[in-house]
Amino acid sequence: MSGNTFGKILKITTFGESHGKATGGVLEGFPAGFTLNSIELQAQVNRRSPGAASHSTKRKEADIVEFLSGIAGNKTLGTPIAFIVANKDARPSDYEKMKDIYRPSHADFTWEKKYGIYDHRGGGRSSARETVSRVVAGAMAMQYLESQGIKIVAYVKALGGIESRQPATIPTKAEVDTSPLRCLDKAAEAKMSALIEAVKKEKDSLGGIISCVVSGLPAGLGEPVFDKMQARLAAAMMSINAAKGFEYGGGFAAAAMKGSEHNDVFGAAGDGIAPLTNTAGGILGGITTGRDVFFNVAFKPVSSIGKKQKTVDNHGNTIDLEIGGRHDVTVVPRAVPIVEAMAALTIMDFLLLQKLNK
Amino acid sequence: MSGNTFGKILKITTFGESHGKATGGVLEGFPAGFTLNSIELQAQVNRRSPGAASHSTKRKEADIVEFLSGIAGNKTLGTPIAFIVANKDARPSDYEKMKDIYRPSHADFTWEKKYGIYDHRGGGRSSARETVSRVVAGAMAMQYLESQGIKIVAYVKALGGIESRQPATIPTKAEVDTSPLRCLDKAAEAKMSALIEAVKKEKDSLGGIISCVVSGLPAGLGEPVFDKMQARLAAAMMSINAAKGFEYGGGFAAAAMKGSEHNDVFGAAGDGIAPLTNTAGGILGGITTGRDVFFNVAFKPVSSIGKKQKTVDNHGNTIDLEIGGRHDVTVVPRAVPIVEAMAALTIMDFLLLQKLNK
Amino acid sequence: MSGNTFGKILKITTFGESHGKATGGVLEGFPAGFTLNSIELQAQVNRRSPGAASHSTKRKEADIVEFLSGIAGNKTLGTPIAFIVANKDARPSDYEKMKDIYRPSHADFTWEKKYGIYDHRGGGRSSARETVSRVVAGAMAMQYLESQGIKIVAYVKALGGIESRQPATIPTKAEVDTSPLRCLDKAAEAKMSALIEAVKKEKDSLGGIISCVVSGLPAGLGEPVFDKMQARLAAAMMSINAAKGFEYGGGFAAAAMKGSEHNDVFGAAGDGIAPLTNTAGGILGGITTGRDVFFNVAFKPVSSIGKKQKTVDNHGNTIDLEIGGRHDVTVVPRAVPIVEAMAALTIMDFLLLQKLNK
Amino acid sequence: MSGNTFGKILKITTFGESHGKATGGVLEGFPAGFTLNSIELQAQVNRRSPGAASHSTKRKEADIVEFLSGIAGNKTLGTPIAFIVANKDARPSDYEKMKDIYRPSHADFTWEKKYGIYDHRGGGRSSARETVSRVVAGAMAMQYLESQGIKIVAYVKALGGIESRQPATIPTKAEVDTSPLRCLDKAAEAKMSALIEAVKKEKDSLGGIISCVVSGLPAGLGEPVFDKMQARLAAAMMSINAAKGFEYGGGFAAAAMKGSEHNDVFGAAGDGIAPLTNTAGGILGGITTGRDVFFNVAFKPVSSIGKKQKTVDNHGNTIDLEIGGRHDVTVVPRAVPIVEAMAALTIMDFLLLQKLNK
Repeated sequence: MSGNTFGKILKITTFGESHGKATGGVLEGFPAGFTLNSIELQAQVNRRSPGAASHSTKRKEADIVEFLSGIAGNKTLGTPIAFIVANKDARPSDYEKMKDIYRPSHADFTWEKKYGIYDHRGGGRSSARETVSRVVAGAMAMQYLESQGIKIVAYVKALGGIESRQPATIPTKAEVDTSPLRCLDKAAEAKMSALIEAVKKEKDSLGGIISCVVSGLPAGLGEPVFDKMQARLAAAMMSINAAKGFEYGGGFAAAAMKGSEHNDVFGAAGDGIAPLTNTAGGILGGITTGRDVFFNVAFKPVSSIGKKQKTVDNHGNTIDLEIGGRHDVTVVPRAVPIVEAMAALTIMDFLLLQKLNK
Repeated sequence: MSGNTFGKILKITTFGESHGKATGGVLEGFPAGFTLNSIELQAQVNRRSPGAASHSTKRKEADIVEFLSGIAGNKTLGTPIAFIVANKDARPSDYEKMKDIYRPSHADFTWEKKYGIYDHRGGGRSSARETVSRVVAGAMAMQYLESQGIKIVAYVKALGGIESRQPATIPTKAEVDTSPLRCLDKAAEAKMSALIEAVKKEKDSLGGIISCVVSGLPAGLGEPVFDKMQARLAAAMMSINAAKGFEYGGGFAAAAMKGSEHNDVFGAAGDGIAPLTNTAGGILGGITTGRDVFFNVAFKPVSSIGKKQKTVDNHGNTIDLEIGGRHDVTVVPRAVPIVEAMAALTIMDFLLLQKLNK
Repeated sequence: MSGNTFGKILKITTFGESHGKATGGVLEGFPAGFTLNSIELQAQVNRRSPGAASHSTKRKEADIVEFLSGIAGNKTLGTPIAFIVANKDARPSDYEKMKDIYRPSHADFTWEKKYGIYDHRGGGRSSARETVSRVVAGAMAMQYLESQGIKIVAYVKALGGIESRQPATIPTKAEVDTSPLRCLDKAAEAKMSALIEAVKKEKDSLGGIISCVVSGLPAGLGEPVFDKMQARLAAAMMSINAAKGFEYGGGFAAAAMKGSEHNDVFGAAGDGIAPLTNTAGGILGGITTGRDVFFNVAFKPVSSIGKKQKTVDNHGNTIDLEIGGRHDVTVVPRAVPIVEAMAALTIMDFLLLQKLNK
Repeated sequence: MSGNTFGKILKITTFGESHGKATGGVLEGFPAGFTLNSIELQAQVNRRSPGAASHSTKRKEADIVEFLSGIAGNKTLGTPIAFIVANKDARPSDYEKMKDIYRPSHADFTWEKKYGIYDHRGGGRSSARETVSRVVAGAMAMQYLESQGIKIVAYVKALGGIESRQPATIPTKAEVDTSPLRCLDKAAEAKMSALIEAVKKEKDSLGGIISCVVSGLPAGLGEPVFDKMQARLAAAMMSINAAKGFEYGGGFAAAAMKGSEHNDVFGAAGDGIAPLTNTAGGILGGITTGRDVFFNVAFKPVSSIGKKQKTVDNHGNTIDLEIGGRHDVTVVPRAVPIVEAMAALTIMDFLLLQKLNK
């Protein structure tokens, strides 16, 4: 009810405030008897860490995942998998001085309106710190999906208005990580990098767009009529901090096409029938066609900027605000594993749901 | 589980195949003792009907809403409100000849993959016929929201690639309906109209973009962290047939802004504090700020076109397909009340959820 | 949320007031492609009707089930199965004079406290009329379960304090129905019958106990830790009007046994291992053992009696109440198919859930 | 889905295996801004510990509750309250030798059938160890309920077949704890105590019955038609390890009453109207009347006994089993706070749900 749980069969419930004792989650519905690779899991979690993608904040947190239940000797038991990640680098003093100030475009204001109380330290639970639990759960889901031949990869499509060319083939995560900005178009990456350096000097910030591709999917995943694959993917992506838009397949551009341009013709494919093109983005009527599902997620620029801003405190006093501390010019490259995680949780949920039709 | 229900507190479950006996729904969680205006309700349902917006198919169905339970003398009882809309104009023969053919970009293929069986008549439950139940439930929600000072209105922003200027003020539904295309920019509307006539001759189809604005909202609606207002709105909108994209506030354009451009500064507003600008689109951290929530939904062009297309039947035989029968060049104007309905169901659900914090 | 839905995968949502237009339900999650036997279904619904078991009220309602969706040519489509049963025999005038009177042990009082409004005609939605929808849905579930080798049967164990001997073998529904009181112990039945006649003259009423047995179950059904098989069965049974108690296996008597008496020893059974005795009632740790599940449900005497009672109206005026109209001395025999229905819905839900572990 | 969560608005999800790293839970939906008394909370948790009630096992675990999130300075934040209790006294070697043996009436067998894998150490997640998380969450709920004037207390009604007289007035928890067996009838307690000592020598075990009373309830709690107060209470109680039966109000005895005996007459009470007697057990039509809710829960004797039993291992070999280690003759007195906890979680959930009708 309170929105801390995602999924129907595979359910992740996250908990934790940014500067509380720990952040963590409980993953339910994961099939019993699956062998998890804890090294790969930790590696995926590390991809979210500051420093994993360059130009990012220097906060040095290890983000070591500790499992409390649901696993015995790397094998899942079918019981809830609880895990925690300690919040090692909590420096509440950084935030104490901003306690009463409504930072522009931050959630302090709305949380206070909602609950009448909130943990102001680092945004409390509204902080992107919460997403580490999603990446942990998503990494488990991704391992399961890979055992079923399904792969998920995301990368930076645009940053600060600089668009990159679409890669000719679906990249691997390793290929994506060869780029410090997780952008596969070298020319665009160079421009983005220069822009970041310039904007850093202005103490300003940048947003961007992440593309994600899911390949190896069977046909038949997705539930009519409210839980269409694209509806759940949209909810998953729009639940990520700073996300402002979602589109799949032809997306917003499809709105300007004619039916004859947009339609994918069916024909023989392999030993069966499939759409021969994939403008649809791998989904028809909310259900996968068996072709790749691909989508884009737009992220706004980081709200915390060092540049001077006007605002008020909760007494109504006008404030000249210059936010100090560790803040990224852009978090878009770091959001890549978060997008992958939410995609993995969504897809695996539908994969398990489809067992009910067997 | 099976995706036929939307909402947490206010829950609509829809049922019905396009050419079955009836389409309908059960609305749960609607507060007891509320007086429904059945004339206004029927009027909103009529706005979805063919012919309500011009250029649309001539299928003449009355779509009369019949209530079975949950209401006594126009007053809600707090019990489930069940309603049906008869499927009067069922002509299965139209569809019998296409029984085995996979129509390009239709859901027949994926439903068959999912269930191994499907009602091929008019798309069965994958048909947009299902959305009539959403409009009925949404109309009830809208009446409740209006009693709380909350208004929802949608209109056509773009059609076939022709963009309209944003209206200077939020229009009323009546103002929207003065336009046969539900587009408030007269110049753009004229171009759209001409384009529709041209495309009709080609037996092709068009998509478009709908804008929606929710005004009069209190601050505090939306649930962290997975049920952010924008996540639920995105799911609601992307569950509508043919939707390909969702964005709110600055949307995809926000990805190209700097933080200093995008941030909304807080200041005195009325007798309180509020963001003085609203690039955010009325939501911070997934929770409403008290400012208007606004968003766009992109729709692909109609898949059923008369223009000749290649496809295969379910035996793999190549087919030259020319889809006959009643088909719109565009359904975007008719989708306006569907967008409003899904917005109303989403917003009212959050409004009721927020009672738990009182 | 509002309690009108039962089940997780197989979900029945019921709607309808006793004297409204119709009573009905929506059954979701039923597997696609299953052939329903509509004659058997109607026959099971008829078993709940007045007159099906003797000594019961003469209200002559046909209770014909009308399907609106989810079925094509007797085959399930995997989509929601909506059905209605018209309320033909509505005589609101019977109830108009009792509009303001709080009938002893009736729910009028509590519904008014809860909602501030209620449909006083025949108890509105608090009436046992609602259970007809459960029997419809349960009959579909029972057909599915029988196709999987699982059988459910219930019968009257005690009535008005008269206990019957347990049948030596599990009876069939047909055998149960050879008794007008659905009691298989002829000696006990005769005493019950005499008691009913005597109590009818006193214008008083009787309660009783129903036993139910589920056979043919696989091991492994039930979900730890809150959704144990017995927890869900208890909820299912205690949701039936007038139910006051639930016990399974050894039940309340088990509380007086020693461990060495109660424990079921494991041993070779068929080509596998199983508990050799079944004091447990077919469930260990909330999960089925593969042995029969059996349980008892206690029902209070009917609250509506002709005998004079004191009460007050909603203005606080003292009233001498003699409830007229059609009222049974006991509804226990008629509750037999309701118990079976709720058992079937519970068991099938778990059977589908267990697919997730395959 | 997987049954690890209880509640609709107030939701507790528990995790943890008996001999894993930790047992714990996540409590969602708890209102923000409530001040928790952590000393009282720990005291209630201690009431479940071995040794709290006499005659019980000597396993000395502190069961210290550690909060990870959702609370700042004893105030709830409205965010998920995660907590853990370390499993300090894990001695897996005790269990290693029984790894392959199906202990009579234990859940090892069914868990293996369900999941194909299970944590055999101490019963893994099927162990009553899990209930510590329920008591933690229940203690929080109880503090909230007490702030609303609602009190919950449970005590031992029967043990090993020895019935106690019902206390003349509702006891306090402190009064209950003056009895080492949590039985308020001194004469019965003495007999129970003697029986326990005798049965301990036989290396056998005993079951019993717990009574629970909820007082101070408002009218109007409970949700028709499937989530009746008694249905949810029954599910709550039957989800406790070893529970075999549930009855409320008149219970099974009501099945032998006449309507005129059972009915509670309405009349003036305080400044309003209420049932003047309470055979109903405080609930009509699934909704509270404002009178006390009271119910009984039957528990089977402990399954782990030292007395020699026959069984088989998972290879089918016959085994003479004498279970060693720490085992109670009876766990019924220790189950008292578990019954209270589940009652508190159920009642508070309905109290919050009823906010939706305001």
